[in-house]
Amino acid sequence: CGNGTTPPGQKTGGAERMRADRAMPTFRTPLKATSSSCHATMPNMLNVHLVPHTHDDVGWLKTVDQYYYGDRNDIQHAGVQYILDSVVDQLLKNPDRRFIYVETAFFFRWWKQTAPVLVSFSGRLEFVNGGWCMSDEATTHYSAVIDQMTMGLRFLNETFGPCGRPRVAWHIDPFGHAREHASMFAQMGYDGFFFGRLDYQDRDRRRTDKDQELLWRASDSLTPPMADLFTGILPNGYNPPDGFCWDQSCDDPPIRDDPDLEDYNVDDVVNRFLMIASGQSLVYKTNHIIMTMGSDFQYENANLWYKNLDKLIHYVNARQANGSKVNVQMRLDDFFPYADNAHNFWTGYFTSRPALKRYERLSNSYLQTCNQLEVLGGPFSGSGPFGHDDSWTMRRAMAVAQHHDAVSGTEKQHVANDYARRLADGWQHCQVVVSNSLAALSGSSAKRIYCDNLNISVCPLTESSHKFSVNVYNPLARPVTWPVRLPVNGTAYTVLDANGKPVDSQVRKNRGSAANELLFQVQAPPLGFSTYSVSLQRRGPPPASTRPRTPPAIQNKFLRATFDPDTGLLSSLSNLETKQTIRLTQNFYWYNASDGNSSVSNQPSGAYIFRPNSSTPFVISRTAKTESLQTSVVQEVRQWFSPWVSQVVRLYADSRALELEWTVGPLPVDDDLGKEVITRLDTSIDSSGIFYTDSNGREVLQRKKDFRPTWDLEQTEPIAGNYYPINSRAYIKDDVNQLTVVTDRSQGGGSIQNGSLEIMLHRRLLYDDVRGVGEPLNETSDVFPEGLVARGRLLLTLDRPQSAADTHRPLAQEVVLQPLLTFTSGDLHPNTRLEFSGLQDALPPAVHLLTLSQWGEDSVLLRLEHQYQSGESKQHTQPVTVNLSDTHTLSLSSTLSLSRCRSGTHTLPACQCLLVAWLHTVSPTVTCQVAGRSHTHTHTHTHIPNL
Amino acid sequence: CGNGTTPPGQKTGGAERMRADRAMPTFRTPLKATSSSCHATMPNMLNVHLVPHTHDDVGWLKTVDQYYYGDRNDIQHAGVQYILDSVVDQLLKNPDRRFIYVETAFFFRWWKQTAPVLVSFSGRLEFVNGGWCMSDEATTHYSAVIDQMTMGLRFLNETFGPCGRPRVAWHIDPFGHAREHASMFAQMGYDGFFFGRLDYQDRDRRRTDKDQELLWRASDSLTPPMADLFTGILPNGYNPPDGFCWDQSCDDPPIRDDPDLEDYNVDDVVNRFLMIASGQSLVYKTNHIIMTMGSDFQYENANLWYKNLDKLIHYVNARQANGSKVNVQMRLDDFFPYADNAHNFWTGYFTSRPALKRYERLSNSYLQTCNQLEVLGGPFSGSGPFGHDDSWTMRRAMAVAQHHDAVSGTEKQHVANDYARRLADGWQHCQVVVSNSLAALSGSSAKRIYCDNLNISVCPLTESSHKFSVNVYNPLARPVTWPVRLPVNGTAYTVLDANGKPVDSQVRKNRGSAANELLFQVQAPPLGFSTYSVSLQRRGPPPASTRPRTPPAIQNKFLRATFDPDTGLLSSLSNLETKQTIRLTQNFYWYNASDGNSSVSNQPSGAYIFRPNSSTPFVISRTAKTESLQTSVVQEVRQWFSPWVSQVVRLYADSRALELEWTVGPLPVDDDLGKEVITRLDTSIDSSGIFYTDSNGREVLQRKKDFRPTWDLEQTEPIAGNYYPINSRAYIKDDVNQLTVVTDRSQGGGSIQNGSLEIMLHRRLLYDDVRGVGEPLNETSDVFPEGLVARGRLLLTLDRPQSAADTHRPLAQEVVLQPLLTFTSGDLHPNTRLEFSGLQDALPPAVHLLTLSQWGEDSVLLRLEHQYQSGESKQHTQPVTVNLSDTHTLSLSSTLSLSRCRSGTHTLPACQCLLVAWLHTVSPTVTCQVAGRSHTHTHTHTHIPNL
Repeated sequence: CGNGTTPPGQKTGGAERMRADRAMPTFRTPLKATSSSCHATMPNMLNVHLVPHTHDDVGWLKTVDQYYYGDRNDIQHAGVQYILDSVVDQLLKNPDRRFIYVETAFFFRWWKQTAPVLVSFSGRLEFVNGGWCMSDEATTHYSAVIDQMTMGLRFLNETFGPCGRPRVAWHIDPFGHAREHASMFAQMGYDGFFFGRLDYQDRDRRRTDKDQELLWRASDSLTPPMADLFTGILPNGYNPPDGFCWDQSCDDPPIRDDPDLEDYNVDDVVNRFLMIASGQSLVYKTNHIIMTMGSDFQYENANLWYKNLDKLIHYVNARQANGSKVNVQMRLDDFFPYADNAHNFWTGYFTSRPALKRYERLSNSYLQTCNQLEVLGGPFSGSGPFGHDDSWTMRRAMAVAQHHDAVSGTEKQHVANDYARRLADGWQHCQVVVSNSLAALSGSSAKRIYCDNLNISVCPLTESSHKFSVNVYNPLARPVTWPVRLPVNGTAYTVLDANGKPVDSQVRKNRGSAANELLFQVQAPPLGFSTYSVSLQRRGPPPASTRPRTPPAIQNKFLRATFDPDTGLLSSLSNLETKQTIRLTQNFYWYNASDGNSSVSNQPSGAYIFRPNSSTPFVISRTAKTESLQTSVVQEVRQWFSPWVSQVVRLYADSRALELEWTVGPLPVDDDLGKEVITRLDTSIDSSGIFYTDSNGREVLQRKKDFRPTWDLEQTEPIAGNYYPINSRAYIKDDVNQLTVVTDRSQGGGSIQNGSLEIMLHRRLLYDDVRGVGEPLNETSDVFPEGLVARGRLLLTLDRPQSAADTHRPLAQEVVLQPLLTFTSGDLHPNTRLEFSGLQDALPPAVHLLTLSQWGEDSVLLRLEHQYQSGESKQHTQPVTVNLSDTHTLSLSSTLSLSRCRSGTHTLPACQCLLVAWLHTVSPTVTCQVAGRSHTHTHTHTHIPNL
Repeated sequence: CGNGTTPPGQKTGGAERMRADRAMPTFRTPLKATSSSCHATMPNMLNVHLVPHTHDDVGWLKTVDQYYYGDRNDIQHAGVQYILDSVVDQLLKNPDRRFIYVETAFFFRWWKQTAPVLVSFSGRLEFVNGGWCMSDEATTHYSAVIDQMTMGLRFLNETFGPCGRPRVAWHIDPFGHAREHASMFAQMGYDGFFFGRLDYQDRDRRRTDKDQELLWRASDSLTPPMADLFTGILPNGYNPPDGFCWDQSCDDPPIRDDPDLEDYNVDDVVNRFLMIASGQSLVYKTNHIIMTMGSDFQYENANLWYKNLDKLIHYVNARQANGSKVNVQMRLDDFFPYADNAHNFWTGYFTSRPALKRYERLSNSYLQTCNQLEVLGGPFSGSGPFGHDDSWTMRRAMAVAQHHDAVSGTEKQHVANDYARRLADGWQHCQVVVSNSLAALSGSSAKRIYCDNLNISVCPLTESSHKFSVNVYNPLARPVTWPVRLPVNGTAYTVLDANGKPVDSQVRKNRGSAANELLFQVQAPPLGFSTYSVSLQRRGPPPASTRPRTPPAIQNKFLRATFDPDTGLLSSLSNLETKQTIRLTQNFYWYNASDGNSSVSNQPSGAYIFRPNSSTPFVISRTAKTESLQTSVVQEVRQWFSPWVSQVVRLYADSRALELEWTVGPLPVDDDLGKEVITRLDTSIDSSGIFYTDSNGREVLQRKKDFRPTWDLEQTEPIAGNYYPINSRAYIKDDVNQLTVVTDRSQGGGSIQNGSLEIMLHRRLLYDDVRGVGEPLNETSDVFPEGLVARGRLLLTLDRPQSAADTHRPLAQEVVLQPLLTFTSGDLHPNTRLEFSGLQDALPPAVHLLTLSQWGEDSVLLRLEHQYQSGESKQHTQPVTVNLSDTHTLSLSSTLSLSRCRSGTHTLPACQCLLVAWLHTVSPTVTCQVAGRSHTHTHTHTHIPNL
């Protein structure tokens, strides 16, 4: 831990003057001056900050375990245990040496195994970023990002105290940068942010204009400077300058300083270094420049680096600069899409591995439910009739899944399998917690069955049982209505709610292995559950409910959707409350993925890159074969476009959203053409080339075709260059209509034509795109030997623009935190509690319960969030007051006492924000006052960024 | 330095019993028991000795500097400075860890740069072998090997004392093993010897018979056990067992001992280890087995090895073996040739790079002269009119040239160039010493000119000067007569000896750039010089002395050689003293090198491997175009066989040897055929498939076609499998005739037909032979863009077998230690001393002055040697007595005082041996008593092997 002097990240303060003489500057390097955390700098010289670092992917070409141990070095030479061993050894040898470390997932393991032999670092090792992983920015949901940052930062805080506090965020590898990430980093209290990847045109302009340091105002809603973040663009990605890589993986010449040698090269090395530093200083404003001395999985043998760095510093400092006037520009937009050259847009990974992306999102919902029930069930959750367990495995699995080669879909197939295995393993552990907790809360220790395959309509229990009950747990802080569809083999069932009242239900022919499907709507209270019992009434075939001909429309009290009788496609959508109607045609298309054989560029589409061969996608079918089904519970139109594309358009009785359940795959590649499948919504909305996408599931940013807000774009890829990440929603609008699409996972999309919105659903590619993964994105498995089939939902809402958020905000949260269904066979014990809520009342509509989880043995972490963005809702963007009195709003469970929690009334500010439990936020006026049991002030005042 | 317990090398003592139960033995590994040098072993268990080691070639694919610093890692990843840094770091971390280090050339450098930060090793680091390099065994001369061993061992002794004493010789990589090396190692006091490469048939038999530990009786001459050496054959070359390589260069799975991991593999690793150890114990006699845990340039990041070895030992020792009865077989022959499979004989490198091999041999002569004159000139040698300098550079250059990828010719071309550069650089330094010394000894500081290109008849001084003098320094301990041939442009010269007496000389047309060549014979006293003055008498063309027709014979008082008038080839050789005559035909041939396209084997000829496509070589020409020249000084017949093969057959007036000066190259490869050129001597000698070659220039071994003395050979390569290294001589004989060929460098050769002896002279190959060097042996350079031209001499003597050694022993020493000519332009100062000898008298014929060199400031190293092998000479194989009284035999120079030397009379034993100065030998009866000034007893009693 340092002496409080300015770290390299803060290079913009003061009134340093521009250097006058550029011919042969002299240098101070940061490693030689003092043994405190920061070396002395010289205001009138060019200060070259050499930053020894490694970037250790938490899974990519190898699994996270393989990376940690250095297994499967035949795939990639990388062993993190050895990196940390070696770096720490080398730091201990020389107090002038420094190192930064980023990925706490690895550091945590290493510390656990090695700590006893470790001595004080005395400021030599600095943590930067410090999350469990370096999360992806395009395909992650903010709630999971916050969780993974919390895991890493908490470990550092508890292990090293203020000395371990990361001061800068460091996202050197993700493939483009989300504004919401910058906003979160600013709110977490980081001093600055460094990254390396941005559009090559943007970068070139910035180099020319010396505009590589900027102030990122990362929120429309938060009062500055709450979301302001100083941001620095690194000079060379995150690599060392050419010729100065002294890792074991590099071949650059070492410094050979024995004058007896034929190969003595000190003069050559120093001259080359001075030339590079001098050149670099020409593209930065200040007289402080940074050189990242390291790269992916480097420093496994740190001695090679340090021995040569020590010599470099020694010899460079044996030679002689000036100040600068700094004026940092402001940035309001994000850094998507990222292109490293004219035909190389990294917009494919927004959609890559759609099944993994969905499983990650669903696992987040599982984890939040597990966390909540771990708290609500009290000590019984961890130790009860179903065993001893906790949410730790699932937390770690989710944390590593945020990595920019995990949920991003840019890892190798075996690594993707490993991430999925980890999530499944995590969920196995959580099921013990959930079963224990539900047993405690319901008073019944009857065995609970988890039907994880309901998405493909498989559940042995419901398919075979005459009588069973369904527990519906709702992780949201307000009541939820949810359609339940269960595979069954009977023809008629009685469904009773928790009060014993019959519930309207339907049985119809099933698409899965079971003969039939039972449908009914359930309701569950805030942060609680309700239990439904289901009894078989009759066997035999279901009533013939499908009508082979497509009806002209399906409709409930909120919405009406019409179909073109000739094509079977959707033709219009109306909101019956607001009495608005738009023309809406929806169909499926595929782009032919470039195979790299093009005169323009040899870039193929791959896991990272989206590069269609032509800007005109092929239509899969101009018409759809349809069937329809209309019951009191749901109205459906089933559409078949081809053997590998089908869809169910569905309208539940109580829903304000039209559901499009798409099934795509296996994509045929017998024609040797890689395919990128989209669905496109073509409407009468006059969107003028403008559309909107969310950033990590929180604030929404405006996008404009062939345009970047901060720089003059030369558009070279008319499709791929107009794609943006969609994490939870996208919309197009004009003055009167807004069509919002809520997604169930991260996907890529764009608006290429006026009134049109396209979303990429699935990709199957035949070539590697030469960004390192070394495999074509061609997903097959034992289950899908012919290619992966993906299924998902798009929820469409039509509203007036000024109130659209009132619908899509809660709707999107319902998709992110969906109810968990658990099943019990047979009759429940009569004393079983069938309904429970952890809240006395629902939280106000603007307030989202982001996190409720066990923190320590006697403490919980509670995060509340104002979920509306500034200006998007007349009704809800106002400040909102919540009462956290233990006896009022929150009544966690009978086993919990909130007596030591700082209860009381708190006002969430007038815009969307996080109210973070436990630790202070940047804005002193929003100091956290919400906590669980045994909250202590010491935590409130640590210097670690907010959790 | 240890506690004196038995090191792993001594596994044969005691009466351990054979293991009874082989099913699942338990183990003790040597790294866990104590912190003393040797870990405790268990007599009733299988003791697995894990030996962490690295093998660091002193040049191969990269130069020695590049290897040390880790430069040019694009060629091969290897950096010795980092290996030593890392190993020492890791040893300091755990007192149970061990490492052996071999190559002192590298350790010396590292120590010089790093020593101040080093602390005591406490026995963790053990030096084995300890020479400056791991010398080649097939192509080295024993005198240079002893020198390089001395350099390494002396450094270890002076730096670490008895603690640094290597106890075992360790030649794990050389490509076959010479008996003389084993003899030297035994005499140097090593306890044992380990190696890894031996003929695959020999090895298979030994594994089956558990005969992998043997007692090597390495001399016919020395009284046992003087040259007895316990020898162990390593189980797996020098590599770790399959699956147990934990170096950064390997991909074997690390031990993953976290039970939470999917990839937990401790049980698997332990089971595999036990299986391998158990299998290995089946092919060794004792219950001690060795596993070499390391390989080429490994341990650059030693943490990877040790972390996993520590775990291996820990987990293996958590499981349980027996004794053995040991009976070690005796071996008398050597381990040449080495074949790793049926068509893969490593016999090409005996000849590879003939020019480098000659330059190395010549440099040895230069170095001995430099060393001697450094002593004889006293303090003036190092600091005199020509500057300050010493022999250190040349010593190091020669020492690294002994490496098994240096003089062996198996390095890359750029590395061969670097070795040559080092030798040339060494010679530049030595010239200062020689000039200073000769100035001191002669009383003249006139500038001395070194004509290094006399081999191609180039010397600017003699070509242009009217008057000059020639100083002839003789490094032998007996007088020498030597033919001098100088390029000149005059037609007649007066040559006067040191006493002013005219010397018979001839001028004739030159083959070089100068018009003419001046020939005369010189004589020089023992360990001293004589000066000849040369004055131009007449310009113009030389007398027409060549006769275009070949005479039927050339003849002097000792020898007569006849030529076939039809073919121009030699037809007979007679010894006129002994009145013996043999039929002798000599011609040149080439083997077509295999290109690997063969159904039998895809092995091509290359730097290591000799594999002719056919056993019948192509004759270059059945006839030679000839010219002859006969003068009183020399008689010559010049033969032209092709544009790239020619020869001069030469008989000097006073010589007992017929000289064949061959010139071969550039070998044409336009026909895409690799060529391996031999000369073959076909005689009437009834040799019965038997011939003889020397071992490292010392003892001579009998060879028999298609036969190995110790095992049943299945001959699979009729030519290559009958090739052996010739370092200084080879001969064939019957009861009455012995034809001996003395070579000027190391070469390969064989006797394929009765009465025939062939020697490979030059090789040019078009394919790499897949043994790692990665280049075809195809030598070209700026000077030889069309391919290397090599020139050399073979000296033929014909004698009665029982007295042949009386001729070839001194003859071979004259070739090894040839006189050095230095030149001075113009008149010498009248006071110049023209003649000098460092000896009062010549040493007895049997005694060879092997070494006289400066040891410390006030001490010198003197090595005397009985140079005859047991039984080879009636006259000279008797014991011989030398008187080392300072006032008698040795009178080094007026500036030296031998007063403190232990002078007196000493008897060299009744056979060839080394009398080593300074330190004790193995045999207590031959304790060294010869020394220079200020000899002290402390040196006499160190435990370091003899220098």
